[in-house]
Amino acid sequence: MKLVIAVVQDKDSSRLSDALVKHNVRATKLASTGGFLKSGNTTFMIGIEDDRVDGVCKLIRDNCRSRKQMMAPMSSMGGNTDSYVPYPVEVEVGGATVFILPIDRFEQF
Amino acid sequence: MKLVIAVVQDKDSSRLSDALVKHNVRATKLASTGGFLKSGNTTFMIGIEDDRVDGVCKLIRDNCRSRKQMMAPMSSMGGNTDSYVPYPVEVEVGGATVFILPIDRFEQF
Amino acid sequence: MKLVIAVVQDKDSSRLSDALVKHNVRATKLASTGGFLKSGNTTFMIGIEDDRVDGVCKLIRDNCRSRKQMMAPMSSMGGNTDSYVPYPVEVEVGGATVFILPIDRFEQF
Ligand code: NI
Ligand code: NI
Ligand code: NI
Repeated sequence: MKLVIAVVQDKDSSRLSDALVKHNVRATKLASTGGFLKSGNTTFMIGIEDDRVDGVCKLIRDNCRSRKQMMAPMSSMGGNTDSYVPYPVEVEVGGATVFILPIDRFEQF
Repeated sequence: MKLVIAVVQDKDSSRLSDALVKHNVRATKLASTGGFLKSGNTTFMIGIEDDRVDGVCKLIRDNCRSRKQMMAPMSSMGGNTDSYVPYPVEVEVGGATVFILPIDRFEQF
Repeated sequence: MKLVIAVVQDKDSSRLSDALVKHNVRATKLASTGGFLKSGNTTFMIGIEDDRVDGVCKLIRDNCRSRKQMMAPMSSMGGNTDSYVPYPVEVEVGGATVFILPIDRFEQF
């Protein structure tokens, strides 16, 4: 048994939740901020058997890994042409930080 | 020294808090969702000496364990007779998921 | 690699955040309550190389340690002279509870 603690961007959080449910993995979620990720993020706590740790890591990577995304050009706000981006730009989104911790004991009541 | 992480239903949270205070156990609480438990839940983090781990587990079990409860019949809402339950039903409430983690070091400043 | 979990008072939280950023240490923050500290607090989760654990502990101690502070006399509220404190009083503020946990594995995606 291990405790997997994964910090993922909010935008990937519900997709990861769905994938975990689909694969019968139970997770507790905590709202968090900061860390490797710039915007708001979610911390998943997952208690899992040793031989399923790789599978859980794969689900996290598949649903949350850092990737590049094209961002549509945004129209100028309030006539301030300085902030106007006339062409699509590539931004990095997602990413996950994962800690796998040993457990002495696990109980369910 | 161990770190006990316990996820319990919100409805049992303040009773567990009181029991921990009464037994002189300090806990940090985090709001959490999902996991084994359906509704909102609370994650307790408790740093505790090895020989008090069993006592803390007992407090968690005594105050949060999964149990059956009779739910009073609810009156029909908005005239929708489909949702009307005319007899008391037994529902399962409570439950706790507990991880006991080893600690390399503990500091208080 | 270790996982440092530090619970600190909200009033010290942003100063600790700044110190961690300045020293290139990444932290995930979770809102928490209770524990050793009376008021609202913040739980920092920090993944860090073994040889930097002492440095992180020093940052936490330097920015959050329990200390005495003079509190200015408060004027009576609502004419209730019972709550009027006519002289400055010394109160204890701050404090940190720090758990250093072993990590089996650390991944970034
Ligand atoms: Ni699959
Ligand atoms: Ni007792
Ligand atoms: Ni410095």
